[in-house]
Formats: sequence, structure tokens, C-alpha cells
Amino acid sequence: MRIALLQDSGVPGEPTANLERLAMAARRAAAESIELLIAPELYLTGYNLGDQLRDLAEPAGGPSAKRAAEIAAETGVALLYGYPEAAGKALHNAALLVDGTGAARANYRKTHLFGLEEKRLFSPGDDLMLVELGALTLGLLICYDVEFPEAVRALVLAGADMIVVPTALMRPYENVAEQMVPARAFENQVFIAYANRCGQEGELTYCGMSCVIAPDGKPLIQSGRGEAFLVAEVDPAAYEESRQANPYLEDRRPALYESAPKRL
Amino acid sequence: MRIALLQDSGVPGEPTANLERLAMAARRAAAESIELLIAPELYLTGYNLGDQLRDLAEPAGGPSAKRAAEIAAETGVALLYGYPEAAGKALHNAALLVDGTGAARANYRKTHLFGLEEKRLFSPGDDLMLVELGALTLGLLICYDVEFPEAVRALVLAGADMIVVPTALMRPYENVAEQMVPARAFENQVFIAYANRCGQEGELTYCGMSCVIAPDGKPLIQSGRGEAFLVAEVDPAAYEESRQANPYLEDRRPALYESAPKRL
Repeated sequence: MRIALLQDSGVPGEPTANLERLAMAARRAAAESIELLIAPELYLTGYNLGDQLRDLAEPAGGPSAKRAAEIAAETGVALLYGYPEAAGKALHNAALLVDGTGAARANYRKTHLFGLEEKRLFSPGDDLMLVELGALTLGLLICYDVEFPEAVRALVLAGADMIVVPTALMRPYENVAEQMVPARAFENQVFIAYANRCGQEGELTYCGMSCVIAPDGKPLIQSGRGEAFLVAEVDPAAYEESRQANPYLEDRRPALYESAPKRL
Repeated sequence: MRIALLQDSGVPGEPTANLERLAMAARRAAAESIELLIAPELYLTGYNLGDQLRDLAEPAGGPSAKRAAEIAAETGVALLYGYPEAAGKALHNAALLVDGTGAARANYRKTHLFGLEEKRLFSPGDDLMLVELGALTLGLLICYDVEFPEAVRALVLAGADMIVVPTALMRPYENVAEQMVPARAFENQVFIAYANRCGQEGELTYCGMSCVIAPDGKPLIQSGRGEAFLVAEVDPAAYEESRQANPYLEDRRPALYESAPKRL
């Protein structure tokens, strides 16, 4: 599967403008035979907007989702993007996956909220999710979620070929992109597609550094700090040798992890 | 606690010579007010020795352990070193911790065996272990063990301040030292002391790259490829701010990891 990551600042507070940026990227993706385009966390609205996110939030089937479905159907490119979801009185930090026919396939709600501001604004999701898309099984996470080894492990043990992660990684957390995401891919022998925001938003400076890491822990592609459109070919069959050489999943010892360590 | 890591090739097949190298390092450590000296995996014998390891193996209380206890008592330096343990008919890839009075405090048997050769030679241990030493609670692992996030998490949730890891990391696995060990420290907000072999042994070339990583994911010290004696001051209280800013342990969602992901 050919995928693309959109590393972009977007226009904070302007969902309509961001949907049109997404449409432009989807047209470029279609021209490059991309099947799946991944945009960052809260791409439709901006991330660092405080209470304004409540006003900009929409239901999972709201007008922005309808426009995204049109873009996907017109271009034939599946889209995954972050947005603030209004669900009754609850606000979720969500990511919607629309396939290349325009059908909504998954609405993932971030399960690990980062910091006091996210915890103040959002309700956490209560489900990890796997979605079949084309030849691949995707595991959905958002930003901070991927920093929990348990979350990635649970998705991989359940069959994920690739973990797809809209994110809003800010300074000074470059180590997450440089060390943790590659380590996570390697220790699970899985692809991770990590699509970050870039530029500045209020007092936050995003890291950029989006990447697609292969099961051998090496980047298929990684970007710098500024706007970027990253393309990668994801082929699990090409990493059979890596899985044989690094059989972490078979070498796990679940009973050991569940019993209390000896105290000496 | 001041600790030192001995990055050394040792003399493969010569436990007596290696005990004397350990004694030299312990005397240097004593002169530098070190409380704990950590030597690599299978330091007493060499790692890549095949069936010869059976002949060189000793019980946990054998002559080499007695000599190590003397060294510790003479220098006042606690020692942690790898050796092949004979336990009845079983052979373990073990690490012995002797405190600065010469008392044996723990005998850890590697729980995750790496590759076909280790699986052929050794029986895996069945216990994770925590040991109180001075002001710190140490979690014991050997090499490949630390590559399993579950093992480190279990030790940290049970109270480890520092994970101590005799290792024999070989090329081309530099990414374990460069990315995975720092990621593991950061995601657990724990110290990791990773003491590697160096040089060549048969067809294997060890990476060196021993390091002590702090809870903020940054190295307190890290070495190059050759022989080295690394000193670090380990002070958990100095990382309270990092733990507050990165509350991974509190932000975990155990129930989420145990339920099956939704399939869409």
C-alpha cells in the first residue's frame, strides 16, 4: 500500500480552509497513486485552541465529515485526519478514517490524554480499534497513545500491520520521534506512520519530523521541521526476514509479566 | 548512588583472568567512591563460546562467586556481573549481585533467551527480581530482556528506581542502544544502566555503547565502541520534574490493554 503523510500547520480556527488543504493534498495523493493520506491530530481545527475547540467540534457524521467523504470519493484516496468530536456533551480528540469510496470506516477517540489541558477539554475514548483497509490491517492511535508500549502491543497482538498516528508532537519532545517511535516499530515488528503538525501555534512549536518506520526499526521516510508531503510504500511481506530475526512477539513471556517480581 | 559500568572484552574462556580484571575495576571504583560496579553479560567466561559454556559454568555459590565476594568485601564495592550458572542439569545465563560487604544479594536468570544458540544452551529463568541496594531499588535484567517493554514496566510498577542490565549487544543492533534503551527509560521515567561487552568474539562484534540513561530519556553517560569505565551519579530525586511532566505510569489504562481491540 502506498501511503502519504501530510505534515502541515493548517489554518488554526478555520476548518473550511483546512478541508480545502486536505482536498489539495488528496488530489496530489491521487496523482501519485496513494491509497491512504494521513493528516495530523486535530488537523481540521488546529490543536492549541483551548475552549474554542468546543465551538468548532462536530459530530462524527457532521458537515466536515461529509466534505471529507466527498474529497475521498472524488480522489479515490482514503483519508485519516484528526478533529474535535462533539458526542452529546462530551468532547473527544478524535480521528476519522474515510475510505476511497467516501465511506466512514472508523472514528477513533484518543484513549490517553496528554497533560492538564487535554484532560480539561476532552473525554478519553474507551476502545482501541483495528480497521481493514485494502491489504492491510491498521491500528489507530493518536499522538500520546503511541508512547504507551501496551497500546501498540495490544494492537499488534490483535493483528495490526501498521499503526497510523495523527499527532501534534511539540518541542522539546523530539526524542519521541527520534527514539521512541522507531523503538516501538522495532519491538513490535510493525510499521508506524506518524503524521505530525509543524510550525507554531501560540506558545507551542511542533516538531515536524513525521515519519514512516518499518518493522526493522528503520525509517522508510522522515521529514524535517517544515511543511512536507511524505510518500512511502508499505509492504509487510518485505520484512519477513526481520520478523524471523527479531521474534519479539513469540519470545514474550506473558505469565512472567503478570506475576509480582521477587523482592530481595 | 555513584555507579560504574565496565565495558570490556574480557578474556574469553578464562574466568580467573576475568575475575582479576573485575578486581582491578573494583579497586578503581573504590578509589572513585563508586557503590556499584556493573560488568557485562557472561563477563566471567565470554559470551560466544557455544558448548564450552557448560564446562565453564559454576553454581551460584561456586568458586568464582566466592572470589567475587572477596573482591566486593575488600573494595567495599557492590558487583553485578554475568556468568553461566550450573543449576543441576540446567544451564542459566545468570547475573550475580554481591553487595559491598561481600554478601550475595541476588542471582538473576535471564528470562528472555535471544536466538537459537541461547535457546539451545540455556534454560530461561522464571522470575523478575527487585533488590534493595543502598538507597535504591534495582530491577535486574540481562540484554534481550530489556527489549521487552512488559519486563521493564513490571519492574518499574513494582518500584524499581534503576534497571541494571549486563548485556552482550552485537552488531547490527546499534538501534537498541541508541533508540530502544533511551525510549525505555523515558516511557518508564526510570534509570537504565546498560553495561555492554566490546570488541570481537568469533564472528560477533559487540557494539560497546554502554550507557546510563536518566528518567528524562537523556544519557548521563555513554561510551564509544572500545574498552571503557563509565561513571554516573544516580539520583532519582533530581527527576521529580520529569516525572511530573511525563506521568506515563499514572496515565496508563490497564483495562484498555486487556480488552480486545474493536475490529472494523
